[in-house]
Formats: sequence, C-alpha cells, structure tokens
Amino acid sequence: MELKDVGEFGLIDLIKADTIQDANSVVVGIGDDAAVVLPSPKQLQVLTTDMLVEGIHFDLSLSLPWQLGHKAMAVNLSDIAAMGGVPRHALVSLALPQRLTTDFVVDLYQGMKEICREFRVNIVGGDTVASPDGLVINVTVLGEVEPRNLVRRSGARVGDWVAVTGTLGNAAAGLDLLQMEDWEEEPFAWPLVKAHLTPRPQVAAGKHVASAGATSMNDISDGLASELNEIAVASNVGIRIYADRLPVSSELDIAVYKLDKLPLEYVLYGGEDYELVFTIREPNFNLVSQAALSNFGVKLTRIGEVVGDATGVTLVHSDERTEKISPRGYNHFR
Amino acid sequence: MELKDVGEFGLIDLIKADTIQDANSVVVGIGDDAAVVLPSPKQLQVLTTDMLVEGIHFDLSLSLPWQLGHKAMAVNLSDIAAMGGVPRHALVSLALPQRLTTDFVVDLYQGMKEICREFRVNIVGGDTVASPDGLVINVTVLGEVEPRNLVRRSGARVGDWVAVTGTLGNAAAGLDLLQMEDWEEEPFAWPLVKAHLTPRPQVAAGKHVASAGATSMNDISDGLASELNEIAVASNVGIRIYADRLPVSSELDIAVYKLDKLPLEYVLYGGEDYELVFTIREPNFNLVSQAALSNFGVKLTRIGEVVGDATGVTLVHSDERTEKISPRGYNHFR
Repeated sequence: MELKDVGEFGLIDLIKADTIQDANSVVVGIGDDAAVVLPSPKQLQVLTTDMLVEGIHFDLSLSLPWQLGHKAMAVNLSDIAAMGGVPRHALVSLALPQRLTTDFVVDLYQGMKEICREFRVNIVGGDTVASPDGLVINVTVLGEVEPRNLVRRSGARVGDWVAVTGTLGNAAAGLDLLQMEDWEEEPFAWPLVKAHLTPRPQVAAGKHVASAGATSMNDISDGLASELNEIAVASNVGIRIYADRLPVSSELDIAVYKLDKLPLEYVLYGGEDYELVFTIREPNFNLVSQAALSNFGVKLTRIGEVVGDATGVTLVHSDERTEKISPRGYNHFR
Repeated sequence: MELKDVGEFGLIDLIKADTIQDANSVVVGIGDDAAVVLPSPKQLQVLTTDMLVEGIHFDLSLSLPWQLGHKAMAVNLSDIAAMGGVPRHALVSLALPQRLTTDFVVDLYQGMKEICREFRVNIVGGDTVASPDGLVINVTVLGEVEPRNLVRRSGARVGDWVAVTGTLGNAAAGLDLLQMEDWEEEPFAWPLVKAHLTPRPQVAAGKHVASAGATSMNDISDGLASELNEIAVASNVGIRIYADRLPVSSELDIAVYKLDKLPLEYVLYGGEDYELVFTIREPNFNLVSQAALSNFGVKLTRIGEVVGDATGVTLVHSDERTEKISPRGYNHFR
C-alpha cells in the first residue's frame, strides 16, 4: 500500500504493536504529545541520537528495510554501551519519500523491534513526516547507568591496558564485498557483510567492562585510529598499540587476500565495527576478560597500553617499526 | 566558510559554546559517545522528538536560520508543555547540504540557544551529517514532570470546561501573509508572521494548568479541530465549542479582512499555533485563569465543554446552528 493512502495516523497504527518490551517503566507510550517513562532509582540518564541519510549512510539497493531498521537502532545502543550504560527507551523519526510503501516502513520497524526485543528497549514515540527527496532516519535512545559505572573518554591513565571487544575491520570489508556482484557465492563474505548490515552493539560487554573499572571507553564507529585518538586527546595521554595483537577474524584474512587489500586498512580506518575500545588496569582486565568470554561469549583482546607523553597514537609493527596513526577520511561534509 | 572546510568536529567546536544552561544537571555534555544527565528526584521523564524537513516544513527563502532553529526547538518544548512537564535537555540532529555555510549553522544554533536560555534547556548532544538533498533538522527533548501533574489526552470528563491559552489562527494567517510580497509594509502582519516563524511554547501555562488539575491537554500543532478530536477520541467523550468564544487577535481580524478569508478557517484548521487546549473542572478553571494572567500574562479562554456522548467535536455557531468538525488536511504524505 502507498503511504498517502494510509496517512500519518494510519501508519502509526500499523507500527504501534510490539513496541513495549518493559511495560513497568513506560507511563505513556506512542500516541500522546510526548512519551513518559519512569527512571530507575539512583541511575543517571544517558542520551544519544544518530541520523542516517539515504545516499550518505545507506543505499536502499544494498540493504533490506529490516536490516536498515536494525542498524539505525544498533548504532544508538552502541553509544549507550560505550558509556557503560543500558539502553531503555527509543524515539524514531522518519522522513519518508512517497516512493516508499507502507510495507517498507513496517519492515523497517520490524528490524528495529527485533533488536529492541533482544535488548529490552521500548520504542515510546517518534515523528513520521514526508520527505521530498531521500529517506532520513533519526533514532534517539535514552539509557541508564549507575553513577559508579559511568565511563567517559577522558579517564585513561598511564599504565592502563588498551583493549577491544571482538574482531575489527569486518564491517568495512563487508561493505566492499557487498558492492561486488557475486559476493553471495563466497561463504567467507557472509559474516563480513552481516557485520556491515546488521552490527551487534556490545551492550553486555560494555556494562561488564565498566563495572570492572574501565577508565575510558569508545565504541568503534569511525575506525580504531579515530577512536583511540579521541581517547588520547580527551585523556591527555599517549597510546601505543601493536599490529600483531589487533584481533582479526579468519573471514577478514580471506577477504583481504581476495580483495588485494591490507588488513590494517580495514582494522584501523574501516569504521562501523561497533565494537568497544577501552582502557583498564591490568588486574581488572584479567578478571573481566575471563568473565566476558564465559558469561556472554565476547572475547576481549589487549592491543596495547597507555603511555605517558601525550603524543597521540603509535602503532608498533611486527618488525618493531613504529608509526603515528591519525584519524583519516572522516570529514562527513566532503 | 564552507562546511567541507571545517568538517564535523570543527563544526562542533563552533557550536559548543553556551549550550549548557543548568550545569548542575549535566554530567557529560557535547563531546562523548552519549550525553549523561542527572534526573531530578521523584520526577517522571518526558520524551519527545520532531523532524523538520526542507521543502515540507520550511522554505529557506521565507525564514532566517535563527528563526528556523528557534522553531525546531519550540515545537518540542510545546510537546513537553502539553504533558504538564518542564523541558530540561535537548539533542539536535542536522543533515546539512553542502550549499549551506558554517555561518548558517551557527545562526541556526543561535536561534536554538536563545530559546533554550529562556527556558533553561541544555543542548547536551546531537549528530551532524551530510545531506545530498535538503536540510533536515531533528530535535529531541527530555523533560520532567511530577507524577501528579502529568496530563494525558485521555482524561477529559463530562462536565469539564474546554479552554485554550492565547489566541488562535495567528500562525496560519502569518504563513499566508509571508508568501505575499509586501507583507512587511502592513503592521498587522508582523505579529502574525512572527507567530508562524518563531512560535512561543506555553511551558509556564502548561505546568500551571496541569498542577491546577487539567484533566486532558494537547498542544495545538495540527489545528484546534484536530487536537479536540484527539482528546474526544482518547477520552471517549464528546466536545462542544462555541464559535463566538474562540479567542482571536485583532491582527487576525484585519488579516482575514485583507486576505478575504473566514477567521474560522485559520482558527480551527490553521495549525502551528502551539497554544494549549485543555479540559478542567469549572472551579479549577476560574482559579487558574486569574493566576495565569497575573503571574505570566497568559490569557486562558473557556471555549466550550465536555459532553456525554462520544460523538466527536461539535461547533455551535453564533446563530445556534451546530456543525460537526473533523480534522482536515493533515495527511502529511499527500
């Protein structure tokens, strides 16, 4: 059905079902001037918002509507995770071009609802408007964090270990593969493409690492080089990482061989991994890394350490050659 | 300066100043993965979001960037006011076409900051991305409301009075005037155009009316007819209003004469007034209307009453002829 046949209120009726996962915390959900929620006692409120624009952040010929919905929500959950918080409520704004159908919008919401169900996030409101050009999706998430678990970018201390969750570079390689015609015939490509299309936010690991005493944390949205530089600047420290410690999936190993690329390109500059990078004292790392693996199957890898002089981020290659690494290519207005 | 010359982080540096109005409640503001705020004790959290799209909601040849910033924030504050709440924190997402300059964005923020200063709202975060087409502005506001002050759409009871703040129809007439070439020469046009370009959210009145026992409330964004029908449906009641009680400014009287329009067209269907319409017991209305006028200069006008049978909204004309009034023309996808 076409959007103009159902109108804004008809569309809201189509998407309203299954938006509440934790009814106890929702006083007013979709359908009034604003949503009203009950904060948990003694928690700080964590707020984040991300806008995805057709032609800039996604291409409707490369992703299905439910994948896009999943991703738009996931990138926000990842920001909450990077503060040590737990996501609770979401608001969804959509600017919809007339060429899209109601089925498209229902599927988009389906993707959001699926990941919201998994992380017990309520979709409590939003705005749905027309767009004369492309599709625009803006998601806002309200989360909560215990005051003692709050982790900022600015707390890294000299001597801390630097560590990451999962493996890096998958999403960027997945995007390159997705643009090739025959990627579906290559089994190694599937998990990489999946990492790009439907990233998993590391909410449980983030909370766990935060409560174990992480001193700083970022989610890896703009590439490891960029995130580490942000931590180094905010904390006024230097960071040294080791090329041969950077965790890489076996699928990425195959992909770089087939694509004739350097793995470090994807790992350092690829972006959109939505893994977490954090700093933490050595004994705390040892405790938390075992717990993370056994409790929720997330591998934590030490990739380096925080050093004294505030001289940015240094990569130590396997031949002990060192190299300064800077953020690269993330001027979104170019 | 052009956006591509400063980049996303350069732009954030340009707009970061003067974003915090109430530092006590902000733990982490602009510049980390997410913002962190301290909720007030025993308050419910109120959440709303609104997306404004170039070519749909605004025309850059008709409004200045600061006016647009003001309005994008004001419409969200109005939604918080309609719940009886007080706005506290805002997130701002912008999708910026390359043709816009950094000055444009700074001015847009200036308009948001001015209204935020007045209402003590912190801008704690956001997202700034590129747009291949038009400008898109999404603002999310987190407010707070005392549980006993929360007012929904659904609480109107038979016998309640129906009342509004201020005067109605100004913004819609202002939009019509703004599209005429010589409007600036007519003094009566100025306040009407201002009502369209920079609406004032009725935050103080909303809180006051809520604490005085309003049983239902909406802000008038889609026209009085639409808002009253929403209250009638949500509360399962009928509403009767009287044409000769609807409050109209003297400027609107002149405008309808000059534009050769019917005043009721603007008053009932115009939209974007951002006044409040509410239902309340008669004795409570008498108390609150005197206080509203003397404490913050807002005139409350009784326009009708809640009636028993759930038969929508009835307008009683001055000749006692009655007419059913329905929402009109707000299918945003047509």
